[in-house]
Amino acid sequence: MSGPAPRPIVVVNPNSNTAVTAGIDAALAVFRFPGGPAIECLTLAEGPFGVESQRDAEAVVLPLGRLVERRPDAGAFVIACYSDPGLDLCRTLTPAPVFGIQEAGVLSAMARADRFGVVAISEASIGRHLRSMRRMGVLERLAGERALGVSVADSGGDAAFAALERVGRALVGDGAGAIILGCAGMAPQRARLADALGAPVIDPTQAAVAMALGAVLA
Amino acid sequence: MSGPAPRPIVVVNPNSNTAVTAGIDAALAVFRFPGGPAIECLTLAEGPFGVESQRDAEAVVLPLGRLVERRPDAGAFVIACYSDPGLDLCRTLTPAPVFGIQEAGVLSAMARADRFGVVAISEASIGRHLRSMRRMGVLERLAGERALGVSVADSGGDAAFAALERVGRALVGDGAGAIILGCAGMAPQRARLADALGAPVIDPTQAAVAMALGAVLA
Amino acid sequence: MSGPAPRPIVVVNPNSNTAVTAGIDAALAVFRFPGGPAIECLTLAEGPFGVESQRDAEAVVLPLGRLVERRPDAGAFVIACYSDPGLDLCRTLTPAPVFGIQEAGVLSAMARADRFGVVAISEASIGRHLRSMRRMGVLERLAGERALGVSVADSGGDAAFAALERVGRALVGDGAGAIILGCAGMAPQRARLADALGAPVIDPTQAAVAMALGAVLA
Amino acid sequence: MSGPAPRPIVVVNPNSNTAVTAGIDAALAVFRFPGGPAIECLTLAEGPFGVESQRDAEAVVLPLGRLVERRPDAGAFVIACYSDPGLDLCRTLTPAPVFGIQEAGVLSAMARADRFGVVAISEASIGRHLRSMRRMGVLERLAGERALGVSVADSGGDAAFAALERVGRALVGDGAGAIILGCAGMAPQRARLADALGAPVIDPTQAAVAMALGAVLA
Amino acid sequence: MSGPAPRPIVVVNPNSNTAVTAGIDAALAVFRFPGGPAIECLTLAEGPFGVESQRDAEAVVLPLGRLVERRPDAGAFVIACYSDPGLDLCRTLTPAPVFGIQEAGVLSAMARADRFGVVAISEASIGRHLRSMRRMGVLERLAGERALGVSVADSGGDAAFAALERVGRALVGDGAGAIILGCAGMAPQRARLADALGAPVIDPTQAAVAMALGAVLA
Amino acid sequence: MSGPAPRPIVVVNPNSNTAVTAGIDAALAVFRFPGGPAIECLTLAEGPFGVESQRDAEAVVLPLGRLVERRPDAGAFVIACYSDPGLDLCRTLTPAPVFGIQEAGVLSAMARADRFGVVAISEASIGRHLRSMRRMGVLERLAGERALGVSVADSGGDAAFAALERVGRALVGDGAGAIILGCAGMAPQRARLADALGAPVIDPTQAAVAMALGAVLA
Repeated sequence: MSGPAPRPIVVVNPNSNTAVTAGIDAALAVFRFPGGPAIECLTLAEGPFGVESQRDAEAVVLPLGRLVERRPDAGAFVIACYSDPGLDLCRTLTPAPVFGIQEAGVLSAMARADRFGVVAISEASIGRHLRSMRRMGVLERLAGERALGVSVADSGGDAAFAALERVGRALVGDGAGAIILGCAGMAPQRARLADALGAPVIDPTQAAVAMALGAVLA
Repeated sequence: MSGPAPRPIVVVNPNSNTAVTAGIDAALAVFRFPGGPAIECLTLAEGPFGVESQRDAEAVVLPLGRLVERRPDAGAFVIACYSDPGLDLCRTLTPAPVFGIQEAGVLSAMARADRFGVVAISEASIGRHLRSMRRMGVLERLAGERALGVSVADSGGDAAFAALERVGRALVGDGAGAIILGCAGMAPQRARLADALGAPVIDPTQAAVAMALGAVLA
Repeated sequence: MSGPAPRPIVVVNPNSNTAVTAGIDAALAVFRFPGGPAIECLTLAEGPFGVESQRDAEAVVLPLGRLVERRPDAGAFVIACYSDPGLDLCRTLTPAPVFGIQEAGVLSAMARADRFGVVAISEASIGRHLRSMRRMGVLERLAGERALGVSVADSGGDAAFAALERVGRALVGDGAGAIILGCAGMAPQRARLADALGAPVIDPTQAAVAMALGAVLA
Repeated sequence: MSGPAPRPIVVVNPNSNTAVTAGIDAALAVFRFPGGPAIECLTLAEGPFGVESQRDAEAVVLPLGRLVERRPDAGAFVIACYSDPGLDLCRTLTPAPVFGIQEAGVLSAMARADRFGVVAISEASIGRHLRSMRRMGVLERLAGERALGVSVADSGGDAAFAALERVGRALVGDGAGAIILGCAGMAPQRARLADALGAPVIDPTQAAVAMALGAVLA
Repeated sequence: MSGPAPRPIVVVNPNSNTAVTAGIDAALAVFRFPGGPAIECLTLAEGPFGVESQRDAEAVVLPLGRLVERRPDAGAFVIACYSDPGLDLCRTLTPAPVFGIQEAGVLSAMARADRFGVVAISEASIGRHLRSMRRMGVLERLAGERALGVSVADSGGDAAFAALERVGRALVGDGAGAIILGCAGMAPQRARLADALGAPVIDPTQAAVAMALGAVLA
Repeated sequence: MSGPAPRPIVVVNPNSNTAVTAGIDAALAVFRFPGGPAIECLTLAEGPFGVESQRDAEAVVLPLGRLVERRPDAGAFVIACYSDPGLDLCRTLTPAPVFGIQEAGVLSAMARADRFGVVAISEASIGRHLRSMRRMGVLERLAGERALGVSVADSGGDAAFAALERVGRALVGDGAGAIILGCAGMAPQRARLADALGAPVIDPTQAAVAMALGAVLA
């Protein structure tokens, strides 16, 4: 470890809610080490306050591309929104690896258990996620996806835990051996939920950053 | 980062060739940080000198299980053989995550490109790998697997690079956007091959350890 | 057929090349009937001169959405670019059906033969198309996709026919019983190629408009 | 549109119930235009009064083939029975396209929504339809198939609507974004059901004829 | 083994070529034992001299159904034509098991090797077989299917062996660990080809009769 | 049938419970004929009293391999444990065919019905079986797997029948047209359950031995 400093990992919150960015930043502190790559968490200024509709997701694509182009120094990028907006574009704009958190969350869960479950924030997103997982070619590993029925704003709060535990248990009952939190902002609940369920729980942003570390350091 | 020291990552070379273990250990140095988890590389004393046949792979399963049981302190295990021997067993013997390098290599490649290719050491292993990837449910992402035609002993040496580059180019021609080195011992060739191909190249042991870091630190 | 006039079918060329729009318009004349729905072919003013890169495709998404919202009178929309840009967005913005020509071309080919082949304009687009077809869940029906190696500008010209025929024959050799022209602008070659190959050849824009007719009239 | 008159589309009701043929004919009136192709609806004289059993379906295959051979003037054929009897045979007997309504209905639904649902007339037909959809390679797009529990004779009547709406809502709850009426005779209920569900509803015979129009006119 | 005599296995050659029936009968002699079920080989009088076209296959369906109904004493039926004609119908007409030789051959090969290959008599049948194997849901196990290029009449003769061996080796090169003879009449070549290839070779009629024995005796 | 005596079929019970072996032996008596192959049922002395955990399954792999090597005279082997332990290894150690009963049971069920169901002894084994069936590439044929909730020791007893019938009916309700008994020891219940359900019920050991007969005799 006496070589040049590793290049930074740039994590982008594509919505303009800086509280979300701060939450992501806190959840990633565990991956910062002396001599290790910087992990910068940025807020996409052009983003909507929350990425909820398909239009919200589409609206951040070009701004994400421009951000990527402004950071030729980056060693890797993480797009911290479970819809993986802009992933295809950004990959064409930089030779650095670009990770989407849905992809990374799903792939990391597949390294932990034969079948996985997903906790979606809302019923409406399940269809989009299924389409993404079909595109990924991994549907045979999906045990189920179930909606939390709690607003995004509340999803990191204490009040959400009971709902998370209920949905998590239902997914375990569906056959899931690992659970993915289908949102960028639920990391604070991760460990507690894993303990309650007795099964691994994946925060997808942490999963993506771990993969980014692997890419930057190898 | 002021909490207790993270638990160690235990990487097991299931063959008894300590030179292979030393090579793995060197390839993983990049993942060691002050305050980060220890990454211990162990040689399975009961293992054959090389894991080549199906019998070799089966013979290490119970010893791997015993090793896992002797290390309740471990935060994660990595089984550093591309056949992923003992993965199913070890996962039943410890609550800690256990990563197989074939699984981790494939999943990490899937986070880098839509379709991936695999460089196999020998023609004979391709069928086994296809069976494993079918079990993983990821065959729709495989662009191709091709054999290097070089002995394991030579696979990390300079002489192997020309063969690697030739096979890598053929896989890119098959549509692979990322290449997996289908062996625990080819890490030293990784960066050079990636440069030559202009495509990401995944060392599966590094990929597994990055995932293990993610699991231990999150 | 004494009811109100059917609502128009709005076909959008997402690039700003009006010659392409004119070609599409000409290819769709066969679907215009007295008393039938108008088939309007529009040029997306905000579009690039050609949609070739991923950025080009992303750049037209929001403008396509705005166009769709400006036409609440439309009975159906067709996005006339084989990358199907904006399809997901537009479907959330209007209750009218929205057809992408890649989707419609593939589905129409599946109604003509057990396995189909695709003629891609360029090698570079094959990977994107495979990803789209995996998302569609139809890869088991694909016999092959092969690149024409001719620029888009030339793809409707006489000079391209020899290349088309050569690639078409290769796809038939791959097992394709129907051939899709993987581009919005090759309709003038369709009938001649079908005759030469003795197999159905699908122009995807015509296929999408036929489906749109079905949706508007039913 | 000043060329020769387009060749007729021949729609065959493979059962001998002329009331069913008349209903199909009425549902297809919307596709008839001045100068457009004739759409002839024929009753297969040799057919059973209803195609309900596997033997019924097999018994119409050779007669359908003979009918196809007697119509070399046809531009396209539609076999108007949801079991798609004789489809494989007829395709070998004519160069004209032959559409089966199950195939066309499923493919058209796939152009309208990511996942579709099917309303079956009877529980007994669900297994056969699943087998057909597996053969089509489209099972990953199926949200569900549910039986109406109403006899074929009644399926177009007012009394069936409540059952249709109940089953349709259950399919939407299964994740279906488009609903296929799994029978040749339910077209009169289509629009009303679509309004009630707020989702596209596909009459498979209309879907097949729209595809036939596309093939005849292009 | 002191119970009543087991019920007979009725093997039907759906073509009217009695030489083919005699060949099948000879190939099944190995399965006849004192006290074991009779294995009767019947020629379908109504069948064509050879089942080659789709029409030939359809023409035998109803006669096969009638034959099945005339034999309520049968313990199991085998339809000895690789197109599996009448399989769906016959299964609805008798409670006795009905085996198709394509199905039985494929399933038996899957019990012998991870991936299998098929020797087709003619190029033209490969597409139909792929469609059948997709319907079976087993395409991920297919290493390849290749045509022999020898007429059915000759397929059991000595002259065909060189072609068989050449095609068999190519399939082994495709990754096939077991080879299926895709025709009812090649049993005499089976053992010699297996010896030449060093891989199991499946005669599908023998495979079906072994399964029928299992069903009748269990 | 005047050739040399056929080579014996060696059926190995990998647990050391000789009562289980005796039960298997009794269930296979129906396949023994004068002049037919001997069917020897052996108990693996090194096996645990029951194969229940993953460790139990792994522990018998090498002993099974050694047993196979000690029997070069065998014409075929059957590993009579539904986890199919040692199957991959044994296939590399002998040129004789080696059948696993899970594989044989599933494949035999696929010859009897379009979709099958599995009765598992315990909830815990369902996940392992799904993984095996994914590896087999046959998940599209699975209607469902449900646990019996009765201990292995009791699974052949009269008391288990009510549970079997209840689970079997539920699987039929899931769409299963054939039912597999997911255990080596339930053969005595097979015929009675088939009668109760009106659907074929497969004892996997009998299914494997029927396939072995086919391989030995052909």
